[in-house]
Amino acid sequence: DRKLSIIAGPCQLESRQHGLDVSARLREIADRLDVGLIYKTSFDKANRTSASAQRGLGLEASLPVFEEIRETSGLPVLTDVHSEEQARIAATAVDVLQIPAFLCRQTDLLIAAAKTGKPINVKKGQFLAPWDMKNVIEKIAAAGNPDIMACERGASFGYNTLVSDMRSLPIMAQFGAPVVFDATHSVQQPGGQGTSSGGQREFVPTLARAAVAVGVAAVFIETHPDPDNAPSDGPNMVPLGEFEALVKRLLEFDALAKGY
Amino acid sequence: DRKLSIIAGPCQLESRQHGLDVSARLREIADRLDVGLIYKTSFDKANRTSASAQRGLGLEASLPVFEEIRETSGLPVLTDVHSEEQARIAATAVDVLQIPAFLCRQTDLLIAAAKTGKPINVKKGQFLAPWDMKNVIEKIAAAGNPDIMACERGASFGYNTLVSDMRSLPIMAQFGAPVVFDATHSVQQPGGQGTSSGGQREFVPTLARAAVAVGVAAVFIETHPDPDNAPSDGPNMVPLGEFEALVKRLLEFDALAKGY
Amino acid sequence: DRKLSIIAGPCQLESRQHGLDVSARLREIADRLDVGLIYKTSFDKANRTSASAQRGLGLEASLPVFEEIRETSGLPVLTDVHSEEQARIAATAVDVLQIPAFLCRQTDLLIAAAKTGKPINVKKGQFLAPWDMKNVIEKIAAAGNPDIMACERGASFGYNTLVSDMRSLPIMAQFGAPVVFDATHSVQQPGGQGTSSGGQREFVPTLARAAVAVGVAAVFIETHPDPDNAPSDGPNMVPLGEFEALVKRLLEFDALAKGY
Amino acid sequence: DRKLSIIAGPCQLESRQHGLDVSARLREIADRLDVGLIYKTSFDKANRTSASAQRGLGLEASLPVFEEIRETSGLPVLTDVHSEEQARIAATAVDVLQIPAFLCRQTDLLIAAAKTGKPINVKKGQFLAPWDMKNVIEKIAAAGNPDIMACERGASFGYNTLVSDMRSLPIMAQFGAPVVFDATHSVQQPGGQGTSSGGQREFVPTLARAAVAVGVAAVFIETHPDPDNAPSDGPNMVPLGEFEALVKRLLEFDALAKGY
Repeated sequence: DRKLSIIAGPCQLESRQHGLDVSARLREIADRLDVGLIYKTSFDKANRTSASAQRGLGLEASLPVFEEIRETSGLPVLTDVHSEEQARIAATAVDVLQIPAFLCRQTDLLIAAAKTGKPINVKKGQFLAPWDMKNVIEKIAAAGNPDIMACERGASFGYNTLVSDMRSLPIMAQFGAPVVFDATHSVQQPGGQGTSSGGQREFVPTLARAAVAVGVAAVFIETHPDPDNAPSDGPNMVPLGEFEALVKRLLEFDALAKGY
Repeated sequence: DRKLSIIAGPCQLESRQHGLDVSARLREIADRLDVGLIYKTSFDKANRTSASAQRGLGLEASLPVFEEIRETSGLPVLTDVHSEEQARIAATAVDVLQIPAFLCRQTDLLIAAAKTGKPINVKKGQFLAPWDMKNVIEKIAAAGNPDIMACERGASFGYNTLVSDMRSLPIMAQFGAPVVFDATHSVQQPGGQGTSSGGQREFVPTLARAAVAVGVAAVFIETHPDPDNAPSDGPNMVPLGEFEALVKRLLEFDALAKGY
Repeated sequence: DRKLSIIAGPCQLESRQHGLDVSARLREIADRLDVGLIYKTSFDKANRTSASAQRGLGLEASLPVFEEIRETSGLPVLTDVHSEEQARIAATAVDVLQIPAFLCRQTDLLIAAAKTGKPINVKKGQFLAPWDMKNVIEKIAAAGNPDIMACERGASFGYNTLVSDMRSLPIMAQFGAPVVFDATHSVQQPGGQGTSSGGQREFVPTLARAAVAVGVAAVFIETHPDPDNAPSDGPNMVPLGEFEALVKRLLEFDALAKGY
Repeated sequence: DRKLSIIAGPCQLESRQHGLDVSARLREIADRLDVGLIYKTSFDKANRTSASAQRGLGLEASLPVFEEIRETSGLPVLTDVHSEEQARIAATAVDVLQIPAFLCRQTDLLIAAAKTGKPINVKKGQFLAPWDMKNVIEKIAAAGNPDIMACERGASFGYNTLVSDMRSLPIMAQFGAPVVFDATHSVQQPGGQGTSSGGQREFVPTLARAAVAVGVAAVFIETHPDPDNAPSDGPNMVPLGEFEALVKRLLEFDALAKGY
């Protein structure tokens, strides 16, 4: 078992400068902790609760920024795509494509993403059982792309609540794809604030620790210099100032879990 | 309160002849029962559980068939769309566009569908609370299209199971859109058969009756001459031979519920 | 299929006079509607959310009041029991014993209640699937008492919420016991107000109507002259002033559902 | 934070000899691992799925065996009680009383157990939110007994399934009672085998590890020399031959979590 990797970054690409700043700080942290870190950023939040919510820079404007983040920080970049066309375009400027949970059953999107040849991080839908991810992974693999990560991000549990079933981690691992635990969206309270989603930032370390103890390939944590003023997912992002200590602690549990 | 309408048809457009035959039979039934009926047909099942599952004729090949069904049967036609481009193209040949449940939070799709000017039937995601549909409806209305139906089709309830919360019907009705109850997909057991979804056809009349008694504008029922040999949703489609009696019974409950 | 019966009354036996008054009014309503009505009253609320909540008159003080209610109103009386001893004692003064949902798996209580020879209304636990009631019913029947009602009162759905699965009604009916739908506790929000349970009185007619349209033997509705000032279950009790109109409407749906 | 304790033993007290043998083996393991271990045994399984299922020795016959187990093994003994009378009698022969999950809202039982002065391990009902345990704990404390443990054992998640929400552990810890994680019943599939409950023994280490990494005072694990032939809970008990290695591993995670 290989050492834990981290997927981290702010929810949105808010601006070029914001992206360069945050990625530089995350690079420093990754170096200090000697951990592989993929920079997560979204050019467009296509499924916001409300249509008037802020959605990010957009794909075209984001491509050169993605390139610049890769060059200046030296970090690989991951972004999420919502259509076949976006998959093809984004693949020219990023290292990993992510399939959003709501879209994990859209066969054409999965295949288009697969055909870019980029590694794919596919999130398990809130409406799926862990064993249902077998078919999702097979759709991508059958399109000729074996480089797939399966990401747990919570299951629907009544209204406006998700629950993280830790059994899903070993179940999904059986399908051969490295398993990622998304500690940020697992504590989301979807739709729970009327026109935006709520969250429970205080449980990010709780769930991340549990998942790492069970054993995962990577943890996904959104982080922001000032979450309370972030345009999206503020209630569940970890303040950047607390990020390093959190990851350091997770690496201790990872070492114990994997015996390295 | 206006009399109940019916949205019905087979899950897929299997072939031109199949579409013409089934729509003709449904037209006869609608005439005998004096009920408004919208013919439902899908050109593509884009989110099948498994990538090797049959997906339908495809959009281009389906357009002339949709036209022919409209002309020969005289029924309005509804189809579901999975991308902005599909919305624009399908709108040229059908009367109602349907947004699939998994995609009900994709803002760009909602807006593209809205901008066609066609009536939109938007399904409530299995991961949404009924009150979360307020924002979905507002996204479509804000794009200039007030002709919106909100469709209940079950909420995630543990793994591989949906539950129909009848409270969702009056809750969604508050948002001003006519409410549709999808009795077919509400009895789906998503992913419940390994590489396909299971279903409980025997509960279609149970749930449809409950919803009509509570009060809805329309009921959505997939029906097929031979469900056990249908390429998709067979376990939850009603045999065409039982369809007329079922709708007749629902109309009795509708008359009582609405006092006409 | 026999005409719908009603089980109704205030949550608690608040005082002798309160019990006599409410039962007299319910008797008048039952006569006007020509419907069988069982008077529901609790001598003790043994599972209140908080220990300091009001619990009722107690068993010993209640027995003569139960007798007096039976005599003056002529209505049969139902009460819920929480221990083997309570079952034996209560059986001397009431017509129907009710097993609370939390206790539906307590074998000794089921058997003790069964052995009194009184009809038993056993509520389905919030934690049980409808098909799990088969064993519950068999425990009572095996103790020599075939006079069993199975009562749906909602299933756990995330935290502090219940959902009513209308499929449970035909499923439980297969086990041979008449099925009761408890419209009052199905709209409870357990624990939802900190030290007491919340409720959604406005959905009582919605769910009751749905259940009656599906087909049930009886509906259970708690009613109170002044629910907002009742010591328990106020948020989900129907005001007595609205009770007659509600039951009248349910009887119309029942007549249609059963074809009488 | 004090070192993890273990509550362990077979589901039932099958016979005097069986109890003496298993407790002696567990004492040896506890000594080798230098861990506090409470011997769990049930004199009666009062809520079996089916009335014909085996229920154990009974209270009267068990009391001298409990005493003998305490004397010969030197381990404290825990047993679960289902009525006020059982609480009083069992308290004379055991060290810890346990309140079953289905009964955690029965005020009289909680108070009777509290008044014995024995430590109480109260299981969170499958139908309760973690914050609902505040009232449960207060009921016991208000009866004069501050020695309370709050035990997570899974929440209802659809039908015949439980899910373990790791957020419940820090939530319940806020109420001041040490938190126990029951890894055995959390993997139960209630009612899932028709006339008995199923289980997923393979996930006991997964969930126990996650809970210990989050931080708990104790883990509850049922263990049996031959689970596949045990009279109850066989599908979710850990074989005694694997128990020591499991606990040893949990202690490593506990040391890391608590920093000792």
